[in-house]
Amino acid sequence: MTLDSRDYLTDGAEIYRRSFAIIRAEADLSGLSPDLARTVVRMIHACGMTDLPRDLAAAPGAAEAGRAALLAGAPILCDAAMVAAGITRARLPAQNEVICTLNAPEVPDLAAKLATTRSAAALELWRDRLQGAVVAIGNAPTALFHLLDMIDAGAPRPALILGLPVGFVGAAESKAALQADSRGVPFITILGRRGGSAITSAAVNALASEAE
Amino acid sequence: MTLDSRDYLTDGAEIYRRSFAIIRAEADLSGLSPDLARTVVRMIHACGMTDLPRDLAAAPGAAEAGRAALLAGAPILCDAAMVAAGITRARLPAQNEVICTLNAPEVPDLAAKLATTRSAAALELWRDRLQGAVVAIGNAPTALFHLLDMIDAGAPRPALILGLPVGFVGAAESKAALQADSRGVPFITILGRRGGSAITSAAVNALASEAE
Repeated sequence: MTLDSRDYLTDGAEIYRRSFAIIRAEADLSGLSPDLARTVVRMIHACGMTDLPRDLAAAPGAAEAGRAALLAGAPILCDAAMVAAGITRARLPAQNEVICTLNAPEVPDLAAKLATTRSAAALELWRDRLQGAVVAIGNAPTALFHLLDMIDAGAPRPALILGLPVGFVGAAESKAALQADSRGVPFITILGRRGGSAITSAAVNALASEAE
Repeated sequence: MTLDSRDYLTDGAEIYRRSFAIIRAEADLSGLSPDLARTVVRMIHACGMTDLPRDLAAAPGAAEAGRAALLAGAPILCDAAMVAAGITRARLPAQNEVICTLNAPEVPDLAAKLATTRSAAALELWRDRLQGAVVAIGNAPTALFHLLDMIDAGAPRPALILGLPVGFVGAAESKAALQADSRGVPFITILGRRGGSAITSAAVNALASEAE
């Protein structure tokens, strides 16, 4: 490894190409469909960890369902502003709307009324956009739990759930609940504590375009 | 582990409290100053990995320097929109400016002229804000390399470099270069491939307020 900072690669396209080549050489992508593999490669790119597939769980056809939904113009519903900020608008195939309701003015009152977190309460404002949407949960376990509760209570079904909350309280549990019973909705998740906004927006960006 | 999604914790403050307690119980924070430990706890919270301290490198007093700079009103210079989006404005002690120049209109031309990435070229627009600033690099290795080059060429010195780019080409190398010679600037980094925008904005959020 050179420590001379004047001797580093500065061609953005070449950096991407080499990065994805390293990931595909190191990561075990066996058994994944081409669309899911491409999605996982980009998730790995966002976190620097090629062992991510070890914890991957996905419904058959989930990546394809998400890609089809985006091509058809589905909105992307994000639980956190960081997830929304990480989605590359130029990659979206249909000028898809990117929606995050967390900071909507009614959310604090709604959270108090529902006795839940703001992250969970914010999903109540998704209801009229949920049908056929791509849901991207990259922060709050309570948001993923609340989504499952909403679907159980009759809310419209999204086309895909990217269920990727991160952390120590509820993250592993909410993702295990999604894997155990996704209520028939296609899903992609990383079981355990890992997840987060960068991995989540990377997954959306991968589904949005076949270009690496 | 229960899979009943109706049986999960929904009190945001209690989720935070338990999360930080788990992190402090599991992570090896020995030898870290209180400010640095608090910063690392929040970085772990953002990625779900309690082994993060294994790869930590920081100059003595770096967290304290960053905290003092923020209290004194220093701007926060971010290499990526996601880093800026993840900074909790309400935690900032002096309504500090959060600046990301990546999408400034002159950046593509600047990148072509300097034969580097847009992420690196965007730092050229930081020059008149760099003195005493908190630099938060959470995405691009070329941005961290370019910052070191700028300082070598006489650019003003920031108060703190959070050098946390992620990935497979240049990330480990740029962070090793920072650790080997930070040009006398206080720094905090995670060596190797791990890093990213969520970890980086979490570090800023920790330095911004002593409240966990």
